[in-house]
Amino acid sequence: MRLHAYYRSSTSYRLRIALNLKQLEYSVVPVNLLAAEQREPEFTARNPFGGVPMLEADGRERAQSMAILEWLDEAYPAAPLLPADIEARFTVRELAYAIATELHAPLNLPVLTYLKREFGRSQDEIDLWYRHFLARTLTGVEARLAQTGAGDFLLDQPGLFESVLIPQLYNARRFAFDMAPYPHLARIEAACLPLPAFIAAHPDNQPDNPENQRP
Amino acid sequence: MRLHAYYRSSTSYRLRIALNLKQLEYSVVPVNLLAAEQREPEFTARNPFGGVPMLEADGRERAQSMAILEWLDEAYPAAPLLPADIEARFTVRELAYAIATELHAPLNLPVLTYLKREFGRSQDEIDLWYRHFLARTLTGVEARLAQTGAGDFLLDQPGLFESVLIPQLYNARRFAFDMAPYPHLARIEAACLPLPAFIAAHPDNQPDNPENQRP
Repeated sequence: MRLHAYYRSSTSYRLRIALNLKQLEYSVVPVNLLAAEQREPEFTARNPFGGVPMLEADGRERAQSMAILEWLDEAYPAAPLLPADIEARFTVRELAYAIATELHAPLNLPVLTYLKREFGRSQDEIDLWYRHFLARTLTGVEARLAQTGAGDFLLDQPGLFESVLIPQLYNARRFAFDMAPYPHLARIEAACLPLPAFIAAHPDNQPDNPENQRP
Repeated sequence: MRLHAYYRSSTSYRLRIALNLKQLEYSVVPVNLLAAEQREPEFTARNPFGGVPMLEADGRERAQSMAILEWLDEAYPAAPLLPADIEARFTVRELAYAIATELHAPLNLPVLTYLKREFGRSQDEIDLWYRHFLARTLTGVEARLAQTGAGDFLLDQPGLFESVLIPQLYNARRFAFDMAPYPHLARIEAACLPLPAFIAAHPDNQPDNPENQRP
């Protein structure tokens, strides 16, 4: 498998975690979003959504990280991202999709760029926007976690939810977001970050991170 | 089943279509978003995400429309929203999740309200924002449909993709969005709208639509 990804893209980070958790082998093909490589015709011919991640796997060029995560679990059932029980699957998906559908787009480059360029907002205003929407959804996620009684992970082991959560919290910390009101989320983050699958997936450890390109 | 919904909410509309396609019986409990009923403590105690839809089904109060759609198909396999073949499932999810994850949040009330109140944008500026992001994602969806060779529906019959698409196009038309560059999407819309499952789900036909409350 070949994963076309950008080190700091949270959806790319999701897929790296999931591929690592499932112990699937893949190579990374860096796509520089700041140079708009994802909008070049050679790329959009393969992925008309013009974004990362794109996963080349089993003869197909696949876009949309949530669709890829669901596909991975169906095509490669070992080390499942989702549990077998239908109700437990709902528990995981409700929380994972809260982050994927409510949070991702408003906090992602295309929206933030529009706020800056078209609406002329300052970085301070964008930081407030970022933390406003983060708090809005994470409050719901935290409350649902309190109702379900999660431990170090949502279920017995990290899976779909943790693959989606950890990259979002990485971004939250970049925006100096106060995690104090979210003890369940902070505990899950602390349990995940030291695991090999999460370390290998971290933006700090990607080949296209500029920090890793200095001699 | 009891569906807590608002007539114009596109995620509520998704669920109405899917429940109708699956021929599952449900009653609608209107939640007035304009009166912020979804933020009242009695509601958020049941759904901490503070939004619609919420589906009461099989002893649980379920939020997050995409998680509910996936759950419905697993718990009630008749009249499937997703095909059985793993690759065809990916085809459907890639397109459905493009709309659900890229488009929904930037075009939804919380974001549009923030643009108006905090950033002081005019309705004209919001219309431009709306059509900008709509075009961005629908261009990708249309191109992918051209690659997959869809007919009146993405596959043989309407399912997950059409349940997510049609409400987004309903919103697109409210914002005077030009559908001319999207012939595949327009053809699928024309095929879906006359079907009973889609007619019954339409915002015009909901009890909480003010048009239906006049004597």
